[in-house]
Amino acid sequence: MTDRSRLEKILQRLDGMKLRQMMICDPTAIFYLTGKWIFPGERFLGLLISRDREPVLFVNELFQFDEEIGAQKVYFSDTDNIIPLLKEKVQADQALGVDKIMAARFLLPMMEQHVAKSFANTSPAVDLSRAVKDAAEQEKMRRSSHVNDLAMEQFKKLIHAGVTELEVAEQMLGIYKSLGASGYSFDPIVAFGGNAADGHHMPDETVLRDGDCVLLDVGCIVDNYCSDMTRTFFWKKEPDEKAREVYELTRRANQEAEDMLIAGIPLMSVDKMARDIITEGGYGPNFTHRLGHFIGIEDHEFGDVSQANENLTEVGNTFSIEPGIYVPGAVGVRIEDLVLITSEGHEILNHYSKEIEVLG
Amino acid sequence: MTDRSRLEKILQRLDGMKLRQMMICDPTAIFYLTGKWIFPGERFLGLLISRDREPVLFVNELFQFDEEIGAQKVYFSDTDNIIPLLKEKVQADQALGVDKIMAARFLLPMMEQHVAKSFANTSPAVDLSRAVKDAAEQEKMRRSSHVNDLAMEQFKKLIHAGVTELEVAEQMLGIYKSLGASGYSFDPIVAFGGNAADGHHMPDETVLRDGDCVLLDVGCIVDNYCSDMTRTFFWKKEPDEKAREVYELTRRANQEAEDMLIAGIPLMSVDKMARDIITEGGYGPNFTHRLGHFIGIEDHEFGDVSQANENLTEVGNTFSIEPGIYVPGAVGVRIEDLVLITSEGHEILNHYSKEIEVLG
Repeated sequence: MTDRSRLEKILQRLDGMKLRQMMICDPTAIFYLTGKWIFPGERFLGLLISRDREPVLFVNELFQFDEEIGAQKVYFSDTDNIIPLLKEKVQADQALGVDKIMAARFLLPMMEQHVAKSFANTSPAVDLSRAVKDAAEQEKMRRSSHVNDLAMEQFKKLIHAGVTELEVAEQMLGIYKSLGASGYSFDPIVAFGGNAADGHHMPDETVLRDGDCVLLDVGCIVDNYCSDMTRTFFWKKEPDEKAREVYELTRRANQEAEDMLIAGIPLMSVDKMARDIITEGGYGPNFTHRLGHFIGIEDHEFGDVSQANENLTEVGNTFSIEPGIYVPGAVGVRIEDLVLITSEGHEILNHYSKEIEVLG
Repeated sequence: MTDRSRLEKILQRLDGMKLRQMMICDPTAIFYLTGKWIFPGERFLGLLISRDREPVLFVNELFQFDEEIGAQKVYFSDTDNIIPLLKEKVQADQALGVDKIMAARFLLPMMEQHVAKSFANTSPAVDLSRAVKDAAEQEKMRRSSHVNDLAMEQFKKLIHAGVTELEVAEQMLGIYKSLGASGYSFDPIVAFGGNAADGHHMPDETVLRDGDCVLLDVGCIVDNYCSDMTRTFFWKKEPDEKAREVYELTRRANQEAEDMLIAGIPLMSVDKMARDIITEGGYGPNFTHRLGHFIGIEDHEFGDVSQANENLTEVGNTFSIEPGIYVPGAVGVRIEDLVLITSEGHEILNHYSKEIEVLG
């Protein structure tokens, strides 16, 4: 393994589940452990980790590579039957943990041909380990959000009279790349006026009008780690009384939820802080989603900041704080930051201003 | 179902497997049957089809919709346990076919809680049905390839002195959209000179040089159906003797494989026709992939034209014929068309010229 300490974290969690071996399929998790990206498409890909043996990577010969990844490589061809190959390495008299995304076309034959004694979804062992970023990951998260800050400065300049949402969105990738990002962490959301109140809105031919709010929810990938930030601007006119009320309430919910962040508090209590502020302000029903999601190699990783999540924050967690108030047909405001839980409390990873900003 | 005849085709194939019910998870297959796209991400999505009951769609309430799709809708929330909901509709005393992509996080609890008597991967029932395009699908495949022909005319004009592969590639999406396509069917391949001989090459900062071959492997989506075509041009200079030999051999392999196409012949015999021509010409080891893949709603669908596929062509099959010869560091030529098997023989879906063309 490129990173033995990450492997050990996962094996310890497997110990707690009374399992000694697991087949990891998720390319993202395999990258996390080996530093190697492999996208097998419909073909099998599995990293077998075990308390008793060295890791083994099963990979189609189409994706052969020379790098040393600290795991034995077992190659197979499109015409090979992989089950006998798996049987050589998996301990058949023991249970096997499998990845939550392992597909039926692999899992069913493994079960029918008794590759292991029993099978269990042990993805939480991987997911909970990944939710705690180590120092190297934290630094990459900072850099990705720094690029996102720089990009937001430039995105703002794309807003001008007559522009459409799509015209703005289509220029973002080039800006990210010029700043050193490898791509989007998700397709950017650009929403003008009433569109900003529609949670499912994708950038379209809507033309900017004076007085519109301009919601930009954007993120990029830098050195394999994701950023994600939302800012809501106004075009040409100061926001009217209602829009200002919505903005200030959203901002206060964002700020107070962030201010309370330390290790060891229930994630649901953070959601509650923001939700209570918005509810007391009279907009409870207009805050239609959870407060945040975990993020890292993927934009949405296991873990969230929601009313249902009783788990406690841990040092190394990185997640979004993104309250929003959506008034159908009128205005939508969302203010989103990424945060890192630290031993001192927390660190905000992006730094773009949250003051009301009127463009144009 | 939007299309009862498609459902009936699948149920007939299930009959042949002695199964009366199947849970389909693949969003593409669900679109094929209902005309409705739903991308559930990590959440459960299943279309239960049965000989005995009306179809039932299990879908998270986040993706609620009004359209009538000929299936009962069962909504659930993020906090609901879906197993009891499935138990209400699946016949527990019978086997259940499942989709090859069904994830372990759903399949394992379904097995542990005895949602059905047994479980089998019955995706071939869906895949083999989808491999035979009906008249409406054939027409959409024609339209998509027609747009691809028009686009190729414009892509050619992007080639000029000093341009990089990436600069060419980045202009393609706009051209496709201006022609009515909704997007790429896959990320376009633009490869100059020796890069064209690398099967894994992605467009990069390589600058065009006089005498380079210019390989464009491109496709778009029109009305949900994919096109896919490859043409290899030359820049500024007539190809040298070697490049001309490679081009003409590739072209003949493409042409003779297409000329033989009728319903009822083994797909492996089509691959053999092209491979034998290239082998006899002395470039067998330089033709490093299968001759073609099936295509439709997805760029790569179940079914291929390879040495291993004994299946016979059927009226309604649509697949690619794409021989290539790759001479490392020097030149790469691939010529790819999409074909439709008809009762009269076959139809080529794209029409861009395959003559040697020197640009600039």
